[in-house]
Amino acid sequence: MLTLFHHPMLASCRFVRLAFGEYGEELALIEEKPWTRRKEFLSLNPAGSLPVLLAEGDVPIVGAQVISEYIDETRGVLKRERRLFAEDPMQRAEIRRLVDWFLTKMESEVTRHLVRERVLKPMMPDTLGGGAPDSAAIRAARANIRQHLKYINWMAGTRHWLAGTRLTYADLAAAAAISTLDYLGEIDWREHNAAREWYTRMKSRPSFRSLLNDRVRGLSPVSHYADLDF
Amino acid sequence: MLTLFHHPMLASCRFVRLAFGEYGEELALIEEKPWTRRKEFLSLNPAGSLPVLLAEGDVPIVGAQVISEYIDETRGVLKRERRLFAEDPMQRAEIRRLVDWFLTKMESEVTRHLVRERVLKPMMPDTLGGGAPDSAAIRAARANIRQHLKYINWMAGTRHWLAGTRLTYADLAAAAAISTLDYLGEIDWREHNAAREWYTRMKSRPSFRSLLNDRVRGLSPVSHYADLDF
Repeated sequence: MLTLFHHPMLASCRFVRLAFGEYGEELALIEEKPWTRRKEFLSLNPAGSLPVLLAEGDVPIVGAQVISEYIDETRGVLKRERRLFAEDPMQRAEIRRLVDWFLTKMESEVTRHLVRERVLKPMMPDTLGGGAPDSAAIRAARANIRQHLKYINWMAGTRHWLAGTRLTYADLAAAAAISTLDYLGEIDWREHNAAREWYTRMKSRPSFRSLLNDRVRGLSPVSHYADLDF
Repeated sequence: MLTLFHHPMLASCRFVRLAFGEYGEELALIEEKPWTRRKEFLSLNPAGSLPVLLAEGDVPIVGAQVISEYIDETRGVLKRERRLFAEDPMQRAEIRRLVDWFLTKMESEVTRHLVRERVLKPMMPDTLGGGAPDSAAIRAARANIRQHLKYINWMAGTRHWLAGTRLTYADLAAAAAISTLDYLGEIDWREHNAAREWYTRMKSRPSFRSLLNDRVRGLSPVSHYADLDF
C-alpha cells in the first residue's frame, strides 16, 4: 500500500485521494501539519508542501498535479473507459487546464484563504502565524466563490461531466475544492442547480466516502456535508 | 507556425519559448499585457493568464506546464535522445517537481514580485494597479533569491544537468526564471560557480538567442545579460 502525506482540509490532497479511490486503490494516510516544517518531512519534500506520495520503492512524488500524472502513467493507461484522463493531447490539455483552475486559481482566490483563516490558524501556535482569523481575508475569499460556482454550473449544465462525456481529473479537482468549502458551509447551493446535481453525483461515488467521513477537531461540518440527498 | 501569447519578462512564457526552440520550431509571438484583460484574449483563456498557445486548429492551450505536456505528447515523444522529458514515470515526476519549483514556488517567492514591481507597474496605468514600486515587496523577494540560487548551484554541481545526465524541462524552467532576474541585475553570480557554469551552457544554446535579444522599453538589461562569457 502506498502512503500519502496529506491534510484532510486541503483540496489538493483530497484530489489525490479521489484519484486513487476511483481506481480502487487504498492509501495509507499520514496527516501532516504543514506549518510545523518537520525535518523528516522536509527531507521528503524540501518545499514543505502537501501532498507528498511515497510511491513504489518509497520514492517521494511531490504535488497534486505531479502525482496525478504519475497515477495516469502507472495506472490510468491500463483502465480503458474508466481512465480519468483522455487519450487525445488536446483533450488532455483541457483537463489539465481545469485541474489547474480548481487547484491553483480557485485555491489562490478562495480555498486557501478560507482554510487558513477558519481551519488552520485556530490550530497553529501564535509563534507560527496562528491566532484570530483575518476577517478581511475571509470577506475577500467569499466574494470570489460565486464566479467559480457559476463556472462549474455552466460546465455541468452543458457537458454532463466537467470536461466532457466522461468523469475525469477535472471533476475530481473541482469536487475536491468544493467539498472543502462545503464542509465549512461556504457554498450557497441555491441558484446553482446544475452544479448541485453534478456534486450530488460526485458525492455518491464510493471514492468520496472517506472524504465525507473526514472531521476536523473542534470544527463540525455543516449538517448537509455528508448528506447524499441534500 | 503556432502562435504564443506571451510577455517577454514572464518566466513561464520564456520556458515555453525555450521548449519550442530546443525542438527547432519557430513560434509567432504576440505580446500580451496581462493587466489589460482584453476581451479577445479572455475568450481564449477566461483566467486571463499567460502563456496561451494557439495550437493546431487554433485551439488554445493554457498555462506553461500544460503547454509543456502538450509539446511532449505531440513532439517530444518523437525526439529520442533530444527529448526534454524522461521516459520513466519516476524521473518524469522529478522533472515535473523541479519545473513546478521554478515556475510556481520560485515565481511566488521571488520572480513575480520583482517583475511586477520593477517591470510591470511602471507600465501600468494607476487605475489598474500601476505606480511606484513597493520597496518592501522588492526587499522580501530579494531576500528569497539566495536559497533558489543555492539549490540550483547544488544540483548543477552534482548532476551536470539539473534533473540528471540530460537536458530536460527542469533546466529550461530554471533558466527561464534565472534569465528574467538576470536581465534585472538581481542575480549575484559570485559564490555560485556551478550555477554560473550551468547557466553559461544554457545561454550558449541556440534556443536562448531570442531571449537574450528581448528588451523591455525603458529598462535596459544589466551589461552581462546577453554576454555568453560573463
